[in-house]
Amino acid sequence: MEEFPTPTLVIDANVVRQNIRRLADYAGEHGIGVRPHTKTHKSRRIAELQLDAGAVGLTIAKASEGEVITQPGDDMLLAYPPIGEVRAERLAKLAKDRIAHAAIDSELAIESTAAAARRAEAMVGLLVEIDIGMNRCGVATPQQALALAQKIDQTEGVRLDGIMCYPGHIWDARDQQGPALAAVSAKLAETIELWKKSGLEAKIVSSGSTPTAYQSHLVPELTEIRPGTYVYNDMNTVRGGYCELDDCAARIVCTVISNAVAGHVVVDAGSKTLTSDLSHPAKDSGHGHLVEYPGAKIVSLSEEHGRIDMSGCDRIPKVGDRVTIIPNHICPCVNLHDNAWWVEPNEPLQQLHTDARGLLV
Amino acid sequence: MEEFPTPTLVIDANVVRQNIRRLADYAGEHGIGVRPHTKTHKSRRIAELQLDAGAVGLTIAKASEGEVITQPGDDMLLAYPPIGEVRAERLAKLAKDRIAHAAIDSELAIESTAAAARRAEAMVGLLVEIDIGMNRCGVATPQQALALAQKIDQTEGVRLDGIMCYPGHIWDARDQQGPALAAVSAKLAETIELWKKSGLEAKIVSSGSTPTAYQSHLVPELTEIRPGTYVYNDMNTVRGGYCELDDCAARIVCTVISNAVAGHVVVDAGSKTLTSDLSHPAKDSGHGHLVEYPGAKIVSLSEEHGRIDMSGCDRIPKVGDRVTIIPNHICPCVNLHDNAWWVEPNEPLQQLHTDARGLLV
Repeated sequence: MEEFPTPTLVIDANVVRQNIRRLADYAGEHGIGVRPHTKTHKSRRIAELQLDAGAVGLTIAKASEGEVITQPGDDMLLAYPPIGEVRAERLAKLAKDRIAHAAIDSELAIESTAAAARRAEAMVGLLVEIDIGMNRCGVATPQQALALAQKIDQTEGVRLDGIMCYPGHIWDARDQQGPALAAVSAKLAETIELWKKSGLEAKIVSSGSTPTAYQSHLVPELTEIRPGTYVYNDMNTVRGGYCELDDCAARIVCTVISNAVAGHVVVDAGSKTLTSDLSHPAKDSGHGHLVEYPGAKIVSLSEEHGRIDMSGCDRIPKVGDRVTIIPNHICPCVNLHDNAWWVEPNEPLQQLHTDARGLLV
Repeated sequence: MEEFPTPTLVIDANVVRQNIRRLADYAGEHGIGVRPHTKTHKSRRIAELQLDAGAVGLTIAKASEGEVITQPGDDMLLAYPPIGEVRAERLAKLAKDRIAHAAIDSELAIESTAAAARRAEAMVGLLVEIDIGMNRCGVATPQQALALAQKIDQTEGVRLDGIMCYPGHIWDARDQQGPALAAVSAKLAETIELWKKSGLEAKIVSSGSTPTAYQSHLVPELTEIRPGTYVYNDMNTVRGGYCELDDCAARIVCTVISNAVAGHVVVDAGSKTLTSDLSHPAKDSGHGHLVEYPGAKIVSLSEEHGRIDMSGCDRIPKVGDRVTIIPNHICPCVNLHDNAWWVEPNEPLQQLHTDARGLLV
């Protein structure tokens, strides 16, 4: 660990396996499928650990991620509307030897996916995305969801598979998510009932985020959940109260490169290593957590500099010392790194390649 | 332009050449060298345009950037302390066939660079970094700068070349930078004078940022400036009043993928395409400028979604339409893209590779 160059991403294999196992156990207990969002790790190897632990399929954000993270025979969901000819065509090509689903919230997305699927002589299953309060994508009402479901049902090349939603707006403490999740449940139930009256079935009802993952049983309509961050965790998860520091599998090892300015040290991890993302549940907490100096605050980032206020610490590191940062938001952070170090106990370090890093479309 | 997949980075070659030419003309007029910071473009091809326009050398942030952006015979400055054995060794290796300089602000940086240079049988020229108000790196006082200069002067393997500073804290309007730059000038003059009394010469006095670039003549001590962003510009530069929208050479072309939520549209450019960096001079201005809809505001980013409030516009784009975003901060944005499209008038699109994207150390 003292020999590799910094800054670099280091992944603790045991913590990854434990995070995967814990969610698989919870989901198994409640009869909910897990379809992990692979945007967090962008790695086939980690996806296989998730599949081996019983995941019902994989979630991707881009068709290109599907090409490198999923394999023939996999069940994959593009949790993103296949708008644009290239995106739809690459999805349709994947659908030839995968069970491929995609989420849509517009007629155009249905039409472009269906056209590409027909050209590819493939079949894409579609989930109608309904907005449950995030105000990002998804139709507003069960009636609008029904209209899209009917259009899918009548369109050649696509198959109506169900409903998708994303509770990305719910950051309440775990034991206070009840009312927000009850509202989600009510909207999903109303939509499912409306479809049923029209003779349409939602075989898949897919939701889920890391903050809400362990409260998924409060939404009995769900057949599956799609958390991503849970596999590594980060300071968003810690500061939201959804995990402990020890559950954070992915960390940045960096080096103190300057202590010339009084009260501060500067490390070689800046925004090109950590991203500029603040911690969602604690926006004034700085740019991550310095493991060896818990009283320190990473007050600002330049591209290759992290400036750390040490006034809350009774000792400070020297120039040349290595320190460890748990990032605020691990998903875009991983996307900055071509490779990570994969640490197995009592084994030499291995390289973990970020297979889908930086892919377009 | 309508055919390539989105989201993608597109560079206007004419605007790049014009930005390079304009700064070269200003600097030539005032007898100041330009040593562009290549962290912005991370591309040998763009570095060559800058060298062809008379740049005295190139600036890099990492030894690895030096390996791919500079070539034998080039004059390069690692504007970063070579702390860590790997960093110092790779710098020393570059110094064998380049004129290599590095900035330092600690005794350890001098010792590690000198040790690596001696092992490589090379010579690294060092600049003592002095803090002029950014409070990031650099010694506080001319006396401390002298002490490091004397140590360099007495250490085999390194050569005392001069002084470096970085005015990254100066974001005043161009015509109001006088007092701040006068303070920089005074501190540099005092340091140079102190060195002179001790028989030491600062042959290179290097400063510069894009916001201050065209006021560099107000600091007569400078021999060279190191702006980076000026080559492409971005909404930091525009909103600070340092350039016009038409001077922004690098833009993200993206596609509207949803308009299901009332009042908003969603594009396929999120934080993994644009970064989460806010505009420094206008932190509440959103996540970039939507060229075709100047009244729009990019209110929030997820990783692959940009949510745009269209309430300030009298028309809104349809799902499937392409739109163009000028990013807030182009340097980390370029670092997210393996390739850009290089647009020459009346020529087919070319790929511009981001040679040094995502390199470590």
